[in-house]
Amino acid sequence: MSAYTESIEKLIEKLVKLPGIGRRSAERIVTYLLGVSEAEVRALAEALLKVKESVRFCSICNNLSEQEACKICDDQRRRKDMICVVEKPSDVTAIEKSGIYNGLYHVLMGSIAPLEGKGPGDLKIEGLVTRIKRENIKELIIATDLDIEGETTALYLTKVLKPLGAKISRIAVGIPMGSNVEYADSATLGKAMESRREI
Amino acid sequence: MSAYTESIEKLIEKLVKLPGIGRRSAERIVTYLLGVSEAEVRALAEALLKVKESVRFCSICNNLSEQEACKICDDQRRRKDMICVVEKPSDVTAIEKSGIYNGLYHVLMGSIAPLEGKGPGDLKIEGLVTRIKRENIKELIIATDLDIEGETTALYLTKVLKPLGAKISRIAVGIPMGSNVEYADSATLGKAMESRREI
Repeated sequence: MSAYTESIEKLIEKLVKLPGIGRRSAERIVTYLLGVSEAEVRALAEALLKVKESVRFCSICNNLSEQEACKICDDQRRRKDMICVVEKPSDVTAIEKSGIYNGLYHVLMGSIAPLEGKGPGDLKIEGLVTRIKRENIKELIIATDLDIEGETTALYLTKVLKPLGAKISRIAVGIPMGSNVEYADSATLGKAMESRREI
Repeated sequence: MSAYTESIEKLIEKLVKLPGIGRRSAERIVTYLLGVSEAEVRALAEALLKVKESVRFCSICNNLSEQEACKICDDQRRRKDMICVVEKPSDVTAIEKSGIYNGLYHVLMGSIAPLEGKGPGDLKIEGLVTRIKRENIKELIIATDLDIEGETTALYLTKVLKPLGAKISRIAVGIPMGSNVEYADSATLGKAMESRREI
């Protein structure tokens, strides 16, 4: 017999499915929830449902959005002739946090991963090609991951998009800010040495 | 401008209020939720509300319950002449997990904490006295925390309950001083229950 009531056990079961939440964290969350007002818990439950109801993918760039077009595609202050190509919506968020980029995005919704049976046909590349042709895009930054799948995808995209005439660049490989040269892997270190910049 | 949509920001805001969940974990949870079915998210939201709706306190021992009396008070296979006194419902859960105790419980709903303005009057002691008198309780195990508040509470309880005639014991110091019953591992907790000393 569990020491918890049925509804608590059921909630814990649901909570441990979330990433980063183990049994102990779930128990702590339940203890916390039992202590707050019902209105508070209701607000959390509603926020959960609201996200699922309202969030969809931007019809232009596939970023997360609550409208037909996402806030970035809709923002008139952004450069409309640059597209940064990423694998997933959370990559957009990460780049936006850096604050350094002011162009548009295109989310591929994955990468070429033969081992998982994912080929170019599974990615949102067609829409990207159409955008480049129609919107007079001058520069493409390919910001897929630096792992094998991301590199394969970058290579494939370069081959397919080069004929369209836009300038294509790839985000730089190098040593992360704040990290140590000593601990960098040799592949990264080699790349960082190669693409050194004069100061 | 946040890179997230409004409803995502709102959900993240709610999630970071939960214990052990920071901004980064909340973002990971949202990404996960966006990927699962709406039914899955609805089930989580409903489990949250269900806990808040159904869980109340046992009218006998103040443990968490979905009925008038909790599962432990209601269990005919348990010894009815022993009460283990704890500070909060999660302490019951912790002791139940050790599997070594087969009597009843009494949850005080706190401890004597003068610094927080909490005195004996704020604890559920009256009900405990009534139970000891009426139910012919032979033994009391005081399993309040081993911190200052818990020890003060144990001392106070001993003074008040001793005249009622039941044997009173305190869980053994086997749990490190200053740490909480709730977070002790089951083996330590079991040992502490076993080697309780009469006071």
